[in-house]
Amino acid sequence: MEHTRIKELLQSEEYGKEVIVKGWVRTFRNNQFIAINDGSSINNIQAVVDFENTPDEILKRITTGAAVRVKGQLVESLGKGQKVEVKATEVSIIGDSDPEKYPLQPKKHSLEFLREIAHLRMRTGTFNAVFKVRNALAFAVHKFFQDRAFVYWHSPIITGSDAEGAGEMFRVTTLDLDSLPRNEQGEIDYKEDFFGKSTNLTVSGQLEGELAALAFGNIYTFGPTFRAENSNTTRHLAEFWMIEPEMAFYEIEDNMDLAEALLKYVIRYALETCPEEIEFLKNRLLEEEKSKPQNERSELNLIEKLNFILDNDFERVTYTDAIEILKRSKPNQKKQFKYLIEEWGADLQSEHERYLVEKHFKKPVILTDYPREIKSFYMKQNEPDAQGRQTVKAMDILFPGIGEMVGGSQREENLEKLLARMAEVGIPAEEMEWFLDTRRFGSVPHSGFGVGFERLVLFTTGMTNIRDVIPFPRTPKNAEF
Amino acid sequence: MEHTRIKELLQSEEYGKEVIVKGWVRTFRNNQFIAINDGSSINNIQAVVDFENTPDEILKRITTGAAVRVKGQLVESLGKGQKVEVKATEVSIIGDSDPEKYPLQPKKHSLEFLREIAHLRMRTGTFNAVFKVRNALAFAVHKFFQDRAFVYWHSPIITGSDAEGAGEMFRVTTLDLDSLPRNEQGEIDYKEDFFGKSTNLTVSGQLEGELAALAFGNIYTFGPTFRAENSNTTRHLAEFWMIEPEMAFYEIEDNMDLAEALLKYVIRYALETCPEEIEFLKNRLLEEEKSKPQNERSELNLIEKLNFILDNDFERVTYTDAIEILKRSKPNQKKQFKYLIEEWGADLQSEHERYLVEKHFKKPVILTDYPREIKSFYMKQNEPDAQGRQTVKAMDILFPGIGEMVGGSQREENLEKLLARMAEVGIPAEEMEWFLDTRRFGSVPHSGFGVGFERLVLFTTGMTNIRDVIPFPRTPKNAEF
Repeated sequence: MEHTRIKELLQSEEYGKEVIVKGWVRTFRNNQFIAINDGSSINNIQAVVDFENTPDEILKRITTGAAVRVKGQLVESLGKGQKVEVKATEVSIIGDSDPEKYPLQPKKHSLEFLREIAHLRMRTGTFNAVFKVRNALAFAVHKFFQDRAFVYWHSPIITGSDAEGAGEMFRVTTLDLDSLPRNEQGEIDYKEDFFGKSTNLTVSGQLEGELAALAFGNIYTFGPTFRAENSNTTRHLAEFWMIEPEMAFYEIEDNMDLAEALLKYVIRYALETCPEEIEFLKNRLLEEEKSKPQNERSELNLIEKLNFILDNDFERVTYTDAIEILKRSKPNQKKQFKYLIEEWGADLQSEHERYLVEKHFKKPVILTDYPREIKSFYMKQNEPDAQGRQTVKAMDILFPGIGEMVGGSQREENLEKLLARMAEVGIPAEEMEWFLDTRRFGSVPHSGFGVGFERLVLFTTGMTNIRDVIPFPRTPKNAEF
Repeated sequence: MEHTRIKELLQSEEYGKEVIVKGWVRTFRNNQFIAINDGSSINNIQAVVDFENTPDEILKRITTGAAVRVKGQLVESLGKGQKVEVKATEVSIIGDSDPEKYPLQPKKHSLEFLREIAHLRMRTGTFNAVFKVRNALAFAVHKFFQDRAFVYWHSPIITGSDAEGAGEMFRVTTLDLDSLPRNEQGEIDYKEDFFGKSTNLTVSGQLEGELAALAFGNIYTFGPTFRAENSNTTRHLAEFWMIEPEMAFYEIEDNMDLAEALLKYVIRYALETCPEEIEFLKNRLLEEEKSKPQNERSELNLIEKLNFILDNDFERVTYTDAIEILKRSKPNQKKQFKYLIEEWGADLQSEHERYLVEKHFKKPVILTDYPREIKSFYMKQNEPDAQGRQTVKAMDILFPGIGEMVGGSQREENLEKLLARMAEVGIPAEEMEWFLDTRRFGSVPHSGFGVGFERLVLFTTGMTNIRDVIPFPRTPKNAEF
């Protein structure tokens, strides 16, 4: 490598040193000042061109988006906002960029427009910052679990099991749709399909993760999961990355402790390793909110909001208590909720979750012990309460602005109770023998949870649309690039 | 957590301390000695039961596979091979295991049998070791790249692009196969499909990775990729994890340097962080090879083989030179190769790669500058040689026993050359406009490569079938669990 990366140069104090910079032109002012970015930093380095001794042929090719190589001396900068700049002695063009055609102009583009050119948007400051924070959060997840001797576990992506019922699934097939094989009954013959059976994309690696937890003790997955749901919201993707730890001998309280520690750890890691990016994103959000009426603006700026998570214990409250709070709440009394809370058993909507987090407790909330009927079959059943109401050891962590950040539970380790619940909800045991074996042979209390990685990135970057925190979002009618 | 994990206890010297162990019974001898494993270590801790003061009701439930809680004193062990043991004062059963039904008996099971019970096989020493090494390698990959300021990049899994041609693809659909929508021409109407078009599972994240490299400089992907190929071999999977770094301003030599450094780093990391696991796997392999004739046994044991990789520079040789070596080789002269090498242009088979690595150079080999016709369209074209033969800046790294461990290249950054090559091989440019934009706007020399993660695990663990290094292998007619 003959060149030095810009992030390193910006931190350097080796004034007078000869350096080579390679990167892309962000702006070129006065035939003299090139702002160059190579992606290593959200900040550009300025190269000052000796335009009298640089051929016109070169000068006119220094356009936004062009790739250049600049050789020169690292010198102290007189401009503000930068410590160093490069006094260029040699400028050459590596790759041109026709300014008439290049879609990224040196001006503010809307996020909607940038979504349409998602293949180029990471060349902007905003997306450089977003994906650097995404990178930091991803590594922090691994580091958190590795430091605690958890085993990183790859649950399968293609699955022959469709029993979990966490959501609608995508079919995976190599059958020729124009000439589908049929059996004697005239049904499609999946025995002819690649895997010899009907297969789908996984909606969760949890069930396989449970198998692993009962072998290794503590494991985590971190991989893509899929939901074929027709939800066109700012918080849903058809393809998203999920982190799913699963721990043998963990009860619900241990599970909550771990989830809270994980979230605080990764947010702190991002703050510590991406201070410039988060500062940039804080200012972006302040700027964006300027156009909103005062009462819709955030009370806290991005950095204050992140520190608020770090500095506060998450509020732990049962579903039953939460329902009482919601019933008595002003928006419920005044019928401002779209879905009024009338009785125990109601499924909580986003508006209720946000009320609890943002208005009532004003901090992250861990809601526990939900009614059995609104939760998954594998959750550990509590003893019925005095009124005979049946709950499960679920735990959902609710974050301001995001709603559900974590969904988890202690798992039902009792074979008979699990089988009874599966029968009630119509999951055929014979398809789940491999899963049930964990309850047959050395069953132990165990717990786990799932974190939607993009929601974590959304929260930490202060972005407001989940399509802006994953490189190429997959949503209904959209699988570009 | 009231209990301490066994790995920690095995390293402890706090004799006399009261401890609680939770784990699964591996064996129970003489109504007295329980070997307990909790997955934290391949090694068990021994608990010595005071059987005279333990109810028969408990003793008879201490069976292989049962989960137990043992409270007692940590004491120095008199047995060999262990430093400490637990003098139990209290034993309770957490989860039973019916010895008549539990498939894992305290004896040696074949790998074939264990593959059929893949949901339980990670409870064995061999698979505990394999997946601990897999975990270490995965984290080492992240650490290597993070230490070098590469951005972890998530290329999409579901893709609307099928142009790369790296292999047969799986279709992803939510269409009802029993009643497919048809357009006026009677063709299946993919506009009605979830994404409004025909979509597949990715075969490689490279093309999207290139977009990112030309924004961030250096990036890497690490995610699942898919090939719908009907290959039932010990080296192929339909679903496997791939690591794909991509670097702006890297030429082919930089690419080779990085790949060699990565492989050495991750293998060294596994050796340093999993010494017990690799020792165990070394002995497993020696044991397995005892049944083979002397001339089929490995010359080096597993640890020697791994150190051999660390201690040697990889041999860098052009395809053209390799062909000369192969032509003159004994197996070619004596017609022992299945595919004889007769002329320049021949595609190298596994037998040729292994000859070069294992017989001729006796070390990892980086083969470069392959004929253009046998490589992908996006590889950078060399100037034709004196005989007018056209090669590309490809680089494949060949490992002993494995064959291709890495496939990479410098990419063709010249738009006209790339378009011409795409036209020759029949890739429609209009489907690839987003990719071609990288060559239109600030195009720069760049390079990258792909590492099949399971092949890396295969090599580092000394296992011989790729189905044994991924939790739940997906192969033709097989998508169990």
